[in-house]
Amino acid sequence: MLAIGDELLSGRTKDRNIGYLADVLTLAGIDLKEVRIVADEPVDIAAAINALRARYTYLFTSGGIGPTHDDMTADAVGQAFGVPVGYHPTAYELLEKHYRQREMDFTLARKRMARTPEGALLIDNPVSTAPGFKMDNVYVMAGVPAVFQAMVNNVVASLPQGPQILSAAVFCPFGEGDIGGPLAQVQAKHKSVVIGSYPKFDGKSYSTELVARSRNEQELEAARLDIEAMLIAVGKEKAGSSPA
Amino acid sequence: MLAIGDELLSGRTKDRNIGYLADVLTLAGIDLKEVRIVADEPVDIAAAINALRARYTYLFTSGGIGPTHDDMTADAVGQAFGVPVGYHPTAYELLEKHYRQREMDFTLARKRMARTPEGALLIDNPVSTAPGFKMDNVYVMAGVPAVFQAMVNNVVASLPQGPQILSAAVFCPFGEGDIGGPLAQVQAKHKSVVIGSYPKFDGKSYSTELVARSRNEQELEAARLDIEAMLIAVGKEKAGSSPA
Repeated sequence: MLAIGDELLSGRTKDRNIGYLADVLTLAGIDLKEVRIVADEPVDIAAAINALRARYTYLFTSGGIGPTHDDMTADAVGQAFGVPVGYHPTAYELLEKHYRQREMDFTLARKRMARTPEGALLIDNPVSTAPGFKMDNVYVMAGVPAVFQAMVNNVVASLPQGPQILSAAVFCPFGEGDIGGPLAQVQAKHKSVVIGSYPKFDGKSYSTELVARSRNEQELEAARLDIEAMLIAVGKEKAGSSPA
Repeated sequence: MLAIGDELLSGRTKDRNIGYLADVLTLAGIDLKEVRIVADEPVDIAAAINALRARYTYLFTSGGIGPTHDDMTADAVGQAFGVPVGYHPTAYELLEKHYRQREMDFTLARKRMARTPEGALLIDNPVSTAPGFKMDNVYVMAGVPAVFQAMVNNVVASLPQGPQILSAAVFCPFGEGDIGGPLAQVQAKHKSVVIGSYPKFDGKSYSTELVARSRNEQELEAARLDIEAMLIAVGKEKAGSSPA
């Protein structure tokens, strides 16, 4: 994913789109492999698009497709693909009709939202009409969370769904330092399962959430049982030689 | 910045460190230019570190320096710099003392937290002892937000502060499409000021927050006045020929 916008890098806006896309893709069995955030700089946007679209099956972008001068994504995508950018006839019609119905001027600024690189297919915007677009394996969507979410829901539903990634969470009352060694052994035994270890700190002491993830239910369950057995063993060891 | 961790890409954890660092850097007058999020894959981490440390003045990382098998950042940094990774004597001592005082075992897993690439300088961890480290212009910090924040506060305070970026926000009751044209003219007139336009959608209609940013107070103020004059003109135009 590529999130675009100065406001994300200045701290003014705290991004909510990355986490949303991550959730939706996980449910669809598609792995999110990398995210980048770049400023409203066409050269930087184009470079990131080319790096990511070459490397991954899909690239999803958020932001920079509105009507103002700092909305540069359509031009940057055109630059990345080496194609001209102009009004997309269907997008133009949709927007023209949208504003006519509302008795609002279809200003030059609003017309910017109809601009796409040559060859783009539109992505429906059920919230506020101005469409996103798809070029090859790149899905260009709005940055406003309500619109991004609606576009993502449509786009991801249209992609081939992978086998869903299943996960099992096991609460561990000990800190990571108590379990790091034996947990690495459990991980080494279950190579098709990815076990994550997430420390929690309540201000005084650590606990850990252990999360096993796999596309295979049996293997996941086997790993989960071994994690629980490991926790019981660590707990006994910590209790040491104290009589029961 | 580079945020490291499978959990950020699966949606399990919603990142809070990017926004925090963005805020702190903005206050310090340092521009955050790019963020990447990668999984717990040493090759990917090392590649991102090398790309970002070559391109920018500083690189800040979060995550992957704990005691478990999925904490791979120290090794990835060593790989990126082409240096071996081993116990840092001061870090080892600090941690040994920390656990001895708490009558906790200094397990092999906990010892992992003393591992740094050769030549690293430590970053103090006032929250839970296990230090971060600095290699050249790369600051390697924890992913747990309380610890990341404490480390960032120390690190950023130690950097030369830039002239602070000042900002002025102007609420615009119209959608971006109404102001995109004239706003671009204001932007063209004030080249040393960056004007951002942030649409807000309340479910029915759009408004816009306009934010001008500059390191020069006079130029910022001049741009702000022109934005306000532009909004008055647009408002009059929208009211059209209706009698006052």
